[in-house]
Amino acid sequence: MKGLFITIEGPDACGKSTQINLLKEYFQNKGYDVVITREPGGTKISEKIRNLILDKENKTMSYKTEALLYAASRSQHVDELIRPSLSNGKIVICDRFVDSSLVYQGIARSLGIENVYNLNLFAMEEVIPDITIFFEIDECEVKRRKNNRRNLDRLESEKDEFHKMVYNGYKTLKGMYPERIKTIDANGTIQQVHQRIIKLVEKVMEK
Amino acid sequence: MKGLFITIEGPDACGKSTQINLLKEYFQNKGYDVVITREPGGTKISEKIRNLILDKENKTMSYKTEALLYAASRSQHVDELIRPSLSNGKIVICDRFVDSSLVYQGIARSLGIENVYNLNLFAMEEVIPDITIFFEIDECEVKRRKNNRRNLDRLESEKDEFHKMVYNGYKTLKGMYPERIKTIDANGTIQQVHQRIIKLVEKVMEK
Repeated sequence: MKGLFITIEGPDACGKSTQINLLKEYFQNKGYDVVITREPGGTKISEKIRNLILDKENKTMSYKTEALLYAASRSQHVDELIRPSLSNGKIVICDRFVDSSLVYQGIARSLGIENVYNLNLFAMEEVIPDITIFFEIDECEVKRRKNNRRNLDRLESEKDEFHKMVYNGYKTLKGMYPERIKTIDANGTIQQVHQRIIKLVEKVMEK
Repeated sequence: MKGLFITIEGPDACGKSTQINLLKEYFQNKGYDVVITREPGGTKISEKIRNLILDKENKTMSYKTEALLYAASRSQHVDELIRPSLSNGKIVICDRFVDSSLVYQGIARSLGIENVYNLNLFAMEEVIPDITIFFEIDECEVKRRKNNRRNLDRLESEKDEFHKMVYNGYKTLKGMYPERIKTIDANGTIQQVHQRIIKLVEKVMEK
């Protein structure tokens, strides 16, 4: 792998998309080839799987089915887009990746981190992020931003307690993978947060 | 589990559907509650996943994605239909189940029987068939029957060599699970084949 694989994690409505676009510009200004993508999704087939997962009609979907569909979507995403891009020396920035599955399905859905990790190891093989940036943000701030959104999908509609488990789950993961997962303070202005991300990313680039 | 779980395996167009219906009638005449189902599919969500897998548009689907989607579909099928039916003492007859994944993805797609079995163990947990009946049939006979069909799906359209690997794969599996997987000769008239199946099933019922 010649490229750089960056994944962004954190609650919905914490400014991930805005920051991903700024980070893309930052790299492009330095002359890098950048691929921006997201999960679940990222390829035509993965997007179809995404629609199945997030469709509010699929209320009876079991947790295990959910975990397997996320892994299926990821497998296609890695094989069709992420691995080839990295092999071509590109920088890939992905909105959510394996850690989302570990916290949502492994911890919040109680399927077990190890069980979910094993499914995902089958899906992604050697394609592990070089750095994962977790957005830490005040709960109230997330709520305020979320209230400005409509049409929450099947997972966004889960209760507050579920989202709290997810949030704490990320902290557990950070303890498990301290070298890979780095936290940034996502409160403050867009530019403040951007500068914090740049600092982290520059450290990884130096290596 | 109080019920009985029977799965039917074998090449397409070897008479599985016809025999499943006859077997259902046989059990119903004896006063049993019978559920007939199929894979991939069997529940609303599983059927949606089935459509994704078999859709000829999804030509770039990777083998791993395919294996994970089959497991996702199976997980939903087990949780929503098969396990509850067995718990209620019903006889469940399923057209294709885990062994299809083991031969198609594990052997013919070269993902490895053990890898695919592990995904499926996550999906089905303790719900393993009491008996699996494999339809053994002349290759030419299958071809003849197949030629009478139209609109072959993504997997049915695979080359002869692939289907040969699948067929031999079942024999490998039979060697691995001789207690569970039983072979019947699927050549001959509908009634002849039906009688062979009844003989096998009666033995299992005696236990």
